[in-house]
Amino acid sequence: MKSWLLINGPNLNMLGQRDQSHYGNETLVDIEDMVREIASANDAYLDVGQSNHEGEIIDWFQNAMHYDGIIFNPGGYAHTSVAIRDAVEMIKIPVIEVHLSNIHNRETFRHHSYLSAVTSGQIVGFGALGYKLAAYALIDQLNERER
Amino acid sequence: MKSWLLINGPNLNMLGQRDQSHYGNETLVDIEDMVREIASANDAYLDVGQSNHEGEIIDWFQNAMHYDGIIFNPGGYAHTSVAIRDAVEMIKIPVIEVHLSNIHNRETFRHHSYLSAVTSGQIVGFGALGYKLAAYALIDQLNERER
Amino acid sequence: MKSWLLINGPNLNMLGQRDQSHYGNETLVDIEDMVREIASANDAYLDVGQSNHEGEIIDWFQNAMHYDGIIFNPGGYAHTSVAIRDAVEMIKIPVIEVHLSNIHNRETFRHHSYLSAVTSGQIVGFGALGYKLAAYALIDQLNERER
Amino acid sequence: MKSWLLINGPNLNMLGQRDQSHYGNETLVDIEDMVREIASANDAYLDVGQSNHEGEIIDWFQNAMHYDGIIFNPGGYAHTSVAIRDAVEMIKIPVIEVHLSNIHNRETFRHHSYLSAVTSGQIVGFGALGYKLAAYALIDQLNERER
Amino acid sequence: MKSWLLINGPNLNMLGQRDQSHYGNETLVDIEDMVREIASANDAYLDVGQSNHEGEIIDWFQNAMHYDGIIFNPGGYAHTSVAIRDAVEMIKIPVIEVHLSNIHNRETFRHHSYLSAVTSGQIVGFGALGYKLAAYALIDQLNERER
Amino acid sequence: MKSWLLINGPNLNMLGQRDQSHYGNETLVDIEDMVREIASANDAYLDVGQSNHEGEIIDWFQNAMHYDGIIFNPGGYAHTSVAIRDAVEMIKIPVIEVHLSNIHNRETFRHHSYLSAVTSGQIVGFGALGYKLAAYALIDQLNERER
Amino acid sequence: MKSWLLINGPNLNMLGQRDQSHYGNETLVDIEDMVREIASANDAYLDVGQSNHEGEIIDWFQNAMHYDGIIFNPGGYAHTSVAIRDAVEMIKIPVIEVHLSNIHNRETFRHHSYLSAVTSGQIVGFGALGYKLAAYALIDQLNERER
Amino acid sequence: MKSWLLINGPNLNMLGQRDQSHYGNETLVDIEDMVREIASANDAYLDVGQSNHEGEIIDWFQNAMHYDGIIFNPGGYAHTSVAIRDAVEMIKIPVIEVHLSNIHNRETFRHHSYLSAVTSGQIVGFGALGYKLAAYALIDQLNERER
Amino acid sequence: MKSWLLINGPNLNMLGQRDQSHYGNETLVDIEDMVREIASANDAYLDVGQSNHEGEIIDWFQNAMHYDGIIFNPGGYAHTSVAIRDAVEMIKIPVIEVHLSNIHNRETFRHHSYLSAVTSGQIVGFGALGYKLAAYALIDQLNERER
Amino acid sequence: MKSWLLINGPNLNMLGQRDQSHYGNETLVDIEDMVREIASANDAYLDVGQSNHEGEIIDWFQNAMHYDGIIFNPGGYAHTSVAIRDAVEMIKIPVIEVHLSNIHNRETFRHHSYLSAVTSGQIVGFGALGYKLAAYALIDQLNERER
Amino acid sequence: MKSWLLINGPNLNMLGQRDQSHYGNETLVDIEDMVREIASANDAYLDVGQSNHEGEIIDWFQNAMHYDGIIFNPGGYAHTSVAIRDAVEMIKIPVIEVHLSNIHNRETFRHHSYLSAVTSGQIVGFGALGYKLAAYALIDQLNERER
Amino acid sequence: MKSWLLINGPNLNMLGQRDQSHYGNETLVDIEDMVREIASANDAYLDVGQSNHEGEIIDWFQNAMHYDGIIFNPGGYAHTSVAIRDAVEMIKIPVIEVHLSNIHNRETFRHHSYLSAVTSGQIVGFGALGYKLAAYALIDQLNERER
Repeated sequence: MKSWLLINGPNLNMLGQRDQSHYGNETLVDIEDMVREIASANDAYLDVGQSNHEGEIIDWFQNAMHYDGIIFNPGGYAHTSVAIRDAVEMIKIPVIEVHLSNIHNRETFRHHSYLSAVTSGQIVGFGALGYKLAAYALIDQLNERER
Repeated sequence: MKSWLLINGPNLNMLGQRDQSHYGNETLVDIEDMVREIASANDAYLDVGQSNHEGEIIDWFQNAMHYDGIIFNPGGYAHTSVAIRDAVEMIKIPVIEVHLSNIHNRETFRHHSYLSAVTSGQIVGFGALGYKLAAYALIDQLNERER
Repeated sequence: MKSWLLINGPNLNMLGQRDQSHYGNETLVDIEDMVREIASANDAYLDVGQSNHEGEIIDWFQNAMHYDGIIFNPGGYAHTSVAIRDAVEMIKIPVIEVHLSNIHNRETFRHHSYLSAVTSGQIVGFGALGYKLAAYALIDQLNERER
Repeated sequence: MKSWLLINGPNLNMLGQRDQSHYGNETLVDIEDMVREIASANDAYLDVGQSNHEGEIIDWFQNAMHYDGIIFNPGGYAHTSVAIRDAVEMIKIPVIEVHLSNIHNRETFRHHSYLSAVTSGQIVGFGALGYKLAAYALIDQLNERER
Repeated sequence: MKSWLLINGPNLNMLGQRDQSHYGNETLVDIEDMVREIASANDAYLDVGQSNHEGEIIDWFQNAMHYDGIIFNPGGYAHTSVAIRDAVEMIKIPVIEVHLSNIHNRETFRHHSYLSAVTSGQIVGFGALGYKLAAYALIDQLNERER
Repeated sequence: MKSWLLINGPNLNMLGQRDQSHYGNETLVDIEDMVREIASANDAYLDVGQSNHEGEIIDWFQNAMHYDGIIFNPGGYAHTSVAIRDAVEMIKIPVIEVHLSNIHNRETFRHHSYLSAVTSGQIVGFGALGYKLAAYALIDQLNERER
Repeated sequence: MKSWLLINGPNLNMLGQRDQSHYGNETLVDIEDMVREIASANDAYLDVGQSNHEGEIIDWFQNAMHYDGIIFNPGGYAHTSVAIRDAVEMIKIPVIEVHLSNIHNRETFRHHSYLSAVTSGQIVGFGALGYKLAAYALIDQLNERER
Repeated sequence: MKSWLLINGPNLNMLGQRDQSHYGNETLVDIEDMVREIASANDAYLDVGQSNHEGEIIDWFQNAMHYDGIIFNPGGYAHTSVAIRDAVEMIKIPVIEVHLSNIHNRETFRHHSYLSAVTSGQIVGFGALGYKLAAYALIDQLNERER
Repeated sequence: MKSWLLINGPNLNMLGQRDQSHYGNETLVDIEDMVREIASANDAYLDVGQSNHEGEIIDWFQNAMHYDGIIFNPGGYAHTSVAIRDAVEMIKIPVIEVHLSNIHNRETFRHHSYLSAVTSGQIVGFGALGYKLAAYALIDQLNERER
Repeated sequence: MKSWLLINGPNLNMLGQRDQSHYGNETLVDIEDMVREIASANDAYLDVGQSNHEGEIIDWFQNAMHYDGIIFNPGGYAHTSVAIRDAVEMIKIPVIEVHLSNIHNRETFRHHSYLSAVTSGQIVGFGALGYKLAAYALIDQLNERER
Repeated sequence: MKSWLLINGPNLNMLGQRDQSHYGNETLVDIEDMVREIASANDAYLDVGQSNHEGEIIDWFQNAMHYDGIIFNPGGYAHTSVAIRDAVEMIKIPVIEVHLSNIHNRETFRHHSYLSAVTSGQIVGFGALGYKLAAYALIDQLNERER
Repeated sequence: MKSWLLINGPNLNMLGQRDQSHYGNETLVDIEDMVREIASANDAYLDVGQSNHEGEIIDWFQNAMHYDGIIFNPGGYAHTSVAIRDAVEMIKIPVIEVHLSNIHNRETFRHHSYLSAVTSGQIVGFGALGYKLAAYALIDQLNERER
């Protein structure tokens, strides 16, 4: 059986509570359930974590070596955290980067992500669906590794 | 029955023939077949087009109003074409942007895409799988519109 | 009798069909008729061309030596095409540059035009009226040359 | 009967006296008469003003509410004055911006105008003729408003 | 027997017809004949192509695999085309880049070429002679490969 | 009765202990007492928090929905934290931004604040007094909302 | 008895007449009266001045040596005037800088103020209330000096 | 007999009154007398003007055609005024630019002068002596013209 | 007896476990032991701390006043943390900055350190040895202070 | 009989000794012999010089007036020396610039050459062959001058 | 008796020989004689030096402590040499910087001088006369020091 | 027995003579003796060199192949010399870069060193002690190589 980790960064715990026009009306629990369902269907269990703390997210990545893959929405830390980038770069399992909103038609400082150069790939602008697509991408990458 | 359009930009006709280490070994026909299969399974047919000509891609967008959605890999034009951006901005159906390689760990001039601000979302760095994810994204967005 | 050429760049064939709030509700044919009428009243006939293809626009400039003057709306190529600039710079007849919308209160990348340094002058932000003003400017410049 | 205002910024009172190769040989009075004639023919009278003082130009815009439209050549203040921009932005009547020379093939600092984003449109590079075209543009915009 | 390809980009068909002071008075046919002569003397035949269309130039590169080497003057596309760069980068035969004029003492936007990083080398500023030098460079590189 | 929240960012707990020439000799407790006094006089109680942890500050903003208003000195996080900006942007109550020193005559990287675009207003350079002014501003904004 | 000076820069005489959504509905006279009232309550009289002329504002600063303190809203000159900065820098009494709107969420060129480095502090984004806060700041700074 | 004009820009009327450490203790009248003395010794009379108003300085340049040469300290307008530059560029007599302090070791925005490209030469950093050197430079340039 | 503090920032706890080619094969405990040995030999004891949390590192600096000196490897926070810089700037004891790898031949964003301007000095690119050199530097600086 | 000068800048004396993969295995003497042979065959003798000293290279250019042409590989000084540029600009004979490696796919600071704007042309990226091409270019330019 | 040193940088030995239109027709010896004459008249002798070598100029500055003052035209090294700047900064006697041509209306890279921040003042654009003015400036500064 | 080389760049011969507050009061001979002592204690002899000449420093690096390691303080050439960088890059023995002062809190142009990317590591801001640390670093690197 495989194990996945889903990490959500700052402010994503507020999903579905505020700013519904911008980020949709699904809560973070809805999203975690949705990903868990896909994981189960693919014979994997899912651990989840959400944190507003840059350091805590780094801690999680450092202790994630035993997972098979990670889905990661870095929130605002995408644009400012070299330290998380270093943690992501050290880990050797697939890390799929997700952004809910289309960061490319928002403020200029959101167009650049320190993380994109070290994640496996990015899924941007599809709202909650983005996590589902990330799960499919993760399954595919794990299948490839087994071949 | 729905109709989809898959547009591939410059040099993507060479997929699977050269640079396999960079872009994988699937040909463009393999990719088009893969997307068509998903389309069929979702009761849609797929039209496809590949062109190295900026103007031809603009023509196709202008005549794509009767489609339900578009999957679009702009290739190198992502980084230089305001004219294609204008064509994409004019059309009101979903346009899913796909990039095969992780453009964020290649040359700096590939980090910016003129198109990202006007496409529905982006799927970057997953190789041929990206098209499959784009198809799922398209299905989801079309379902949402019908609701 | 004089001869004029009216060249419209990418996406301008869509005028009046979409984005009416942004670009007005006159079609390109309406505009061409309006300019032709002024041409006739000034004893000139008008040839017209619209293309989404950068190369085709260059072709037209290269073969436009026998015209007395050109009215040119470069659309999105204004911001990206050095090749059209070279073609415009080579021709020795007046070239009047027209932009429908006020490019200076849109995205930053629209504020710069490669062409402005080599066209006779620019008329920006007056919608379809801009073509009429361009025609008057052309008449004036041709009169000056005859003196 | 309508009323128009023609404002000319710094150094434009010197027109026709020096630098004829750059700006033509018509004096400012010639230009004002030319615009007045068009105004009369369109049942409007014209008030004129020329000033080298940024503050005075702002004063005039603040007291111009009773005019139907303004033709404005900001001269060098186009490139440096946020204060005039604010005054132009406050007024709700059409303001047509005119530049005698083609500012886009002169020094780099002349390529940007603080005013262009808040004027109705720009006419650039046609010498004294530019004012005539501006008058036509003004007539057209006033007609549109009446419709 | 070897085969060479000579590709000329936008506006180079106008050589010798206009702007003689800038580019010399030899026509493109003169240049093609000059290169063909060198080719013949080295037991190679020469195919030639000139196009103002970015896409067509890409097409040619994609179909140039059976040639032994390419001489390429990209004209204005040198400064704006990532798509041609991608096509050049894919091909594995020598590509010699030629610029007629010294692009380094012209406008700043001509100082950078997207292509230089992926061509074998550049010959800049020697007018028509540059093609002759390119031919010698090509011969030399082909000899090296055979060793 | 109303409730206010006073949040102080990194290093502000050291106030009055070190660097008195730069930041004055009042301690953070002095400042909190001063603000509390004004709050009491306006029939409000004050909660206070100081943290060196970016994530903790985000936590506080997420749980501050039941307050009527916030006074916030972000310290060094003003210049680097997109994540706090996102948290501030989500909350719908007034947030008054305070900086003790005049950040505009210190190092360049202190001139820009990610937060200023999403706070109600800024009070900069008045030392401990700035908090008093912020309290008055908060009272005023709350009065306005009640009207 | 103390004496204060209130200087308002370009376009602030229009307050309350236009753009009420952006700047509030209080007129400049309302604001001057509000500040005068606070001055009186603190045993000071208030002189006021508003000008659209950069030079006149400099004149006022040069002749303001006999005042005890200045409240100054520079309007658009904040972003462009080195000459006013020099005049402010020369004077040794407190100068409190006020901006009605939050300049940090408007156009980029409004984010930088030449004056902020030489004024005592800034109060930004609180509308007419900002002047009241500035008056309190001035009282405080004058009290400090007397100690 | 020759005639010279000495123009001093904003804040230079305050010389010798404040900031003596930065600008020396000579007053503007001292400086004007010093230059007048040199003028007299060279059979020329001197007119002087000082203004804080950009527009007034432009007025003076426009009316200075009958002078033989100008010594000009633009003060803060050196760094911000395109309009004065245009006025200086129009006049055909020598204009010697003087700066009291060494602008190159002060703030970055003082390193660039819009005027330097159009004045005859610059004398920077020598305090009041700079005017004396400027007078010598003017005598020399006038002698050269007579030869 | 003296007391030293050794602070290691984010991801440095992973030393010797991953990325050995980049950072060497010594673990953080090895390094701490190595520094402790030097401390002991110089009659000092060593406290150590490693954290992935920006805020925790700030806490440590605020409570480090009783130490005689600090050796600090900020890891990724060197490039992004103004808040740590402020904490370092406040402390008056020597702070020696260490970087394991040569940050100057890695990505551009690693070339700049917010901390370097406020630390005593930097030792860059010597791997684990860097800590030993830092210890020697600390001893020397403490000796100097005692003189 | 003609005379040529071949100047090689810093570190080029090391050719063929180190870094053979980057610069080829021919020594500088090999290259000088190769060029001398072409010179002889064209009835010219060749003087050669190599220096690591910027000043010495300037000396040589100043004393090179009696040569008919110069072939110059500036090495690293291409990117940093305005003084050599001035020396090259002063001389009126042809100067052919050679770079062994393709400077356009190395570090960014190597993409710009101060010299290219003042040399006759550039030959870049062809290794030792570049000198041979430069010799042909020189012959051609000298022939042209004689016509 | 006083002693002065006149240092001229690269290419200034060529004065009067070439480029007379740009730099005048006086030779460097003429200039040295002119300055020596002024020195003699002021009871000082003059040593002179010209070098194309950056290092030699540094040597001279290091050994110039026994002079009373220096006149220095750095030529092209003004724009590129930090090492000369360091040497100038170390010396405590007046250093007057001279530039023959108006560097502010030439290429952009000539607008910035590393030296200006550490020289006493600059005299720019007056040709050979500039040295004479520099001599007067030097006399004045030496007189001031004696007071 | 090993051999080391100590190279000091421009102006470092002046150490201890001037600017003692900035660089300390030890002379260069003191420093050389200090390093020699460490060398001797490690069974190595030390050659030393100091030069103000960029070219001479390059010469030394080219002839340094027989040394075991180099300690190098490039002085001002760190920030401007690509040619020295190339010489350092060619040599295969360890090169330890030393800067006396903390270049990161001085002028911006001192923050970047062309050399840092090609030296083994940097020791910055420790005054004369830096050389001692460099010697220890060199010993360590040589030991590593022997293992």
